[in-house]
Amino acid sequence: MRSYFWVGCLTKFSNVALIAYSEILLKSDAVRKRLEDLLVKQIRLRLKLDGLNFWRIRKEGGRIYILGENPEEICRSVLKVFGVDFSASALETETGQEEIVENSLKLAEKILGENESFAVRARRVGKHPYTSKDLEVKIGSTILKKLGESKSLKVNLENPDKTIFVEAREKKAYIYSKIFRGWGGLPVGSQGRLLIFLGNNVKTALAGWLMMKRGVFPIPFYLNQTNKDEEDFRFAKTLKDYISQPNLKVYVAPFKKILDSIPQNINSNLKTLLIQRLAVKVGCKLANLKKALGIVLGVSLDPKPTQTLRLLSYLEDASTLPIFHPLIGFEKKEIEDLRLKLNFPENLTKKTFFDFSPPENYNGITDEKLKNFEEKIDVEKLVEKIVNEVKVVKI
Amino acid sequence: MRSYFWVGCLTKFSNVALIAYSEILLKSDAVRKRLEDLLVKQIRLRLKLDGLNFWRIRKEGGRIYILGENPEEICRSVLKVFGVDFSASALETETGQEEIVENSLKLAEKILGENESFAVRARRVGKHPYTSKDLEVKIGSTILKKLGESKSLKVNLENPDKTIFVEAREKKAYIYSKIFRGWGGLPVGSQGRLLIFLGNNVKTALAGWLMMKRGVFPIPFYLNQTNKDEEDFRFAKTLKDYISQPNLKVYVAPFKKILDSIPQNINSNLKTLLIQRLAVKVGCKLANLKKALGIVLGVSLDPKPTQTLRLLSYLEDASTLPIFHPLIGFEKKEIEDLRLKLNFPENLTKKTFFDFSPPENYNGITDEKLKNFEEKIDVEKLVEKIVNEVKVVKI
Repeated sequence: MRSYFWVGCLTKFSNVALIAYSEILLKSDAVRKRLEDLLVKQIRLRLKLDGLNFWRIRKEGGRIYILGENPEEICRSVLKVFGVDFSASALETETGQEEIVENSLKLAEKILGENESFAVRARRVGKHPYTSKDLEVKIGSTILKKLGESKSLKVNLENPDKTIFVEAREKKAYIYSKIFRGWGGLPVGSQGRLLIFLGNNVKTALAGWLMMKRGVFPIPFYLNQTNKDEEDFRFAKTLKDYISQPNLKVYVAPFKKILDSIPQNINSNLKTLLIQRLAVKVGCKLANLKKALGIVLGVSLDPKPTQTLRLLSYLEDASTLPIFHPLIGFEKKEIEDLRLKLNFPENLTKKTFFDFSPPENYNGITDEKLKNFEEKIDVEKLVEKIVNEVKVVKI
Repeated sequence: MRSYFWVGCLTKFSNVALIAYSEILLKSDAVRKRLEDLLVKQIRLRLKLDGLNFWRIRKEGGRIYILGENPEEICRSVLKVFGVDFSASALETETGQEEIVENSLKLAEKILGENESFAVRARRVGKHPYTSKDLEVKIGSTILKKLGESKSLKVNLENPDKTIFVEAREKKAYIYSKIFRGWGGLPVGSQGRLLIFLGNNVKTALAGWLMMKRGVFPIPFYLNQTNKDEEDFRFAKTLKDYISQPNLKVYVAPFKKILDSIPQNINSNLKTLLIQRLAVKVGCKLANLKKALGIVLGVSLDPKPTQTLRLLSYLEDASTLPIFHPLIGFEKKEIEDLRLKLNFPENLTKKTFFDFSPPENYNGITDEKLKNFEEKIDVEKLVEKIVNEVKVVKI
């Protein structure tokens, strides 16, 4: 069976998925090993989740090599694993110069079209009887000699149509041309957990994604401010794509009853503020229960002068945990660009969930009034009650 | 004098600096007007600071027009004013189609080289007897007719070598080709003030810059952890370039004596944590005095598992104000890319100032020990003492 497969592979040129990562290549061996192991574990789980066949994952010299049925599909599958800089479907060969040149020529034959320009980029780690420059020159000149005329090829080192990459390592060499870009970052979970406040606005998901990319494991949390159970968890589902797990627990708190229990006849700015603070308190309480080190909001600064910064002061005052605002320095346009780049879904049109937003203004709000009112409605008890009614939905 | 000048201007083609802004074009007229006025004020101050002569600033239809001696220098000068999307040195003409076409041809003659491709992009606001499409076709065909053959020009709408922009407004039309990109964002100060913790690492300045771009006025703050007075305020100076003021007050607290007063014989992790918390408390106290709504740190998540998030929990616990970490979702590489894009200075090599950093680990640290120790050394009094000794340096 396998030998049959290998024949198939050679016609497809590549026989291994090469995976590059960089930020976790630390000086400290112990920490580095822990992070590398976490990365490999998540890659393994991701491939299983995607139903891809593979028989070996090998880690060597800052690269991960995966032997499997379809290297290109493996390359695509791992792109959503944070920590992966890029992947490439490569041919693994012996390290002899002749063999490398011969196989590079085969790849060139396969990928270079007529009138195209190309470049060869070689890197070398370990001991070899040639330099990386030697390889580049030898491969480049061989391609020109054998194919240059018939295909009208030219070398272009600045901006080539196609590039042939060669990596000569201690034991094996790798040849590839197509690179799949990952997101980089740190393996999910390596930095602990944070509670992500999700809502109707995609900004909440983008904020969560940014923290996950920095190694955070997400505890997705929604406050349902309606009576209805038709909950659209598209943002939690989108985030789930980036963790290598079959399921993710989403936490949903019933917020409607509580909102209704706040008297209607109070200053509407004060009421808005109370609700925002209540939401933060619920989030903190749940975060503590779930051993999360903080909470993440999708708030950014919109042009309305100082409304939002003041809101964040009030939220901070209500919080017992750090509140992270990864979008705080982003332009409106940068946020939309990020959404498009990630292909994240649009905002929900139904306002099922609670989203943070500043009151119209801060007229009539004093710290004293706020505290008095919070005491009067017994906020701590309300929070307790909401947290007790939180439901868990597996997605 | 002026008529002589105008002749000079016409040979240079442009007679006005056109400034575009977008994010503050809000629906609410009152807020929009306030933000636009702030933007115009800062542009005016910036031009004065840069010693540029101008005699009129006019705001109309989402554009600012500046009449001055050297439109191109004016365009460059305003690029560091947050809120400016782009500027362009333009020719202001009457709105008649003939005049627009004629002047566009003049511009084309000036800027188009042999064998170059070009495009015409027109927009129109107000009532005119032509559409923007009409303008584009008429200008494009005239250029081709008059110059196409002699210069071997061709039209390329996708990726032209040069573009001629035409904006027909109610009263006047504007023709230009070169666009200077600004940073966008919101006028500095429109969102209130934040205290920016600056240190030896450029990340502290980048964090400050990101918040300033979102409309925050900076209160730059350093903790000097040495005995020496040779303080390199390069980061505060870099930030100052983005506010239209001749001076900026930098606040510097003496941190050395206090550090020395903490007993040497305690657990070093505990000591590190104490110092970080002390720094935050000093920052909060000063922020309150200076009416800042929060503090900004340049912390990002490095690969060391959970060390940093835990530190941020401890900082949050020590803080009475929101702490902003605008770099929290950034990759290491993104931070370096931002530094290069902004041409910000390198890290200081002398460790004059305090920078936040997590302890080696959290072994031997309990909340109780921490609180006990903070009581023992009377942290509140220490903070008071440091804040009283803060010096103000005008840069």
